[in-house]
Amino acid sequence: MSVGTKKAPQIKTMGEASKVRKNIEISEKGKQRKKEIIEATIEVIVHSGVQGVTHRAVALEAGVQLRLTTYYFKDKEDLINEAFIYFAEEGKFLMAGFLELAYEHLENLSGLEKNNLTSKNRKKIYEAFSALASDFLIHNLKHERDHIAVQQAFLNEAIKNPLVRELHKSHRKRLINNVSELCKFANKEDAEINAEIFVNAFEKMEHEGVCTPVKNIDEKKYQAMVHKLVWWMIM
Amino acid sequence: MSVGTKKAPQIKTMGEASKVRKNIEISEKGKQRKKEIIEATIEVIVHSGVQGVTHRAVALEAGVQLRLTTYYFKDKEDLINEAFIYFAEEGKFLMAGFLELAYEHLENLSGLEKNNLTSKNRKKIYEAFSALASDFLIHNLKHERDHIAVQQAFLNEAIKNPLVRELHKSHRKRLINNVSELCKFANKEDAEINAEIFVNAFEKMEHEGVCTPVKNIDEKKYQAMVHKLVWWMIM
Repeated sequence: MSVGTKKAPQIKTMGEASKVRKNIEISEKGKQRKKEIIEATIEVIVHSGVQGVTHRAVALEAGVQLRLTTYYFKDKEDLINEAFIYFAEEGKFLMAGFLELAYEHLENLSGLEKNNLTSKNRKKIYEAFSALASDFLIHNLKHERDHIAVQQAFLNEAIKNPLVRELHKSHRKRLINNVSELCKFANKEDAEINAEIFVNAFEKMEHEGVCTPVKNIDEKKYQAMVHKLVWWMIM
Repeated sequence: MSVGTKKAPQIKTMGEASKVRKNIEISEKGKQRKKEIIEATIEVIVHSGVQGVTHRAVALEAGVQLRLTTYYFKDKEDLINEAFIYFAEEGKFLMAGFLELAYEHLENLSGLEKNNLTSKNRKKIYEAFSALASDFLIHNLKHERDHIAVQQAFLNEAIKNPLVRELHKSHRKRLINNVSELCKFANKEDAEINAEIFVNAFEKMEHEGVCTPVKNIDEKKYQAMVHKLVWWMIM
């Protein structure tokens, strides 16, 4: 039971205060345990796919007793959905780093007029975005392979699982909106379509790239593809 | 055991001829059974993912006894690999229909000079290819949903399964080469990169689209994305 979801209690005596503190401590420990179980669920998805998620497999992966996972998560679906939400938050975090850099670059382009770009400034935006996006792709292909594998597993799951489908849709909509906001600096009109094409191509490059061992990844090819895509979108 | 893989026997008497004919009949029946078992394996993959493939699940799906699936396929890996090969052949068949139409369109463009396109002919190629490709995408999203789901499942499997990975790579290489040959009619130089971007974006549109029930598919949006991609590649 979480203290946070209840009305804050009015503390009157020292004894009561200590009782409340104890509840809060239990709750913090509970949150930590829930997090560990969710992370174990994601590990199971990396190794055995969403199909592999069972309370037993998750408890084994987390190194906790079965009764603990069933205490925090009523069923398998609950585990999968919470894992997706956690994963989507991680994705937002990854994307936030990329967006922060992109906006920083835009701020540094002196004399940039959003609605009336000179071809020189348009080229500057292309150069900054294509470099950032290809670095981001290659970074992910080297260091976020599990994240990409889980993304694929959830996409697969979204075909049959209506709850995961809704979570996936809203996660993806936010992602496309973020990219679309960036695209608007170059082209107002088709920003949404450009952003969706970009996200599709980019994510599929990740999904294909993760099938290749890191040492065999053809960085030059990925760079060429990303640069070309950004060129098309911006120039 | 297949007769086809052995040296053709020299038939000397009618009795021997009838024995050979019987062997051939058994082999034809065997081939048919193998095909049914492989199709059942693909059905299992559609419903339960590659993780769901077991001899038991496949025998149940095919409506045959367990000993039959273990007679034709020595283990689970054998089932998965044969299913992928069968699936890739189906994909080639789908793609062949598309390519045939594309080349037919090209032949009908009178006065087309491959190495010196007029802007009018370039536009004609864009119009023909974008219409064909978006029709193909929407057809697949409506009528080839199982095929798309299996494609995704195999892509997932390729991350961890080296044999599926190699099969996937050679299947994909052939696909990109086919598209690249088409791209060369417009741009010789970047045909391979253009083709790979196109295949990435196209397949990811299929993978996202298949998460949406047929009645909710936004055909106009998919058309706009495909037209834009082909425009970028050709114009």
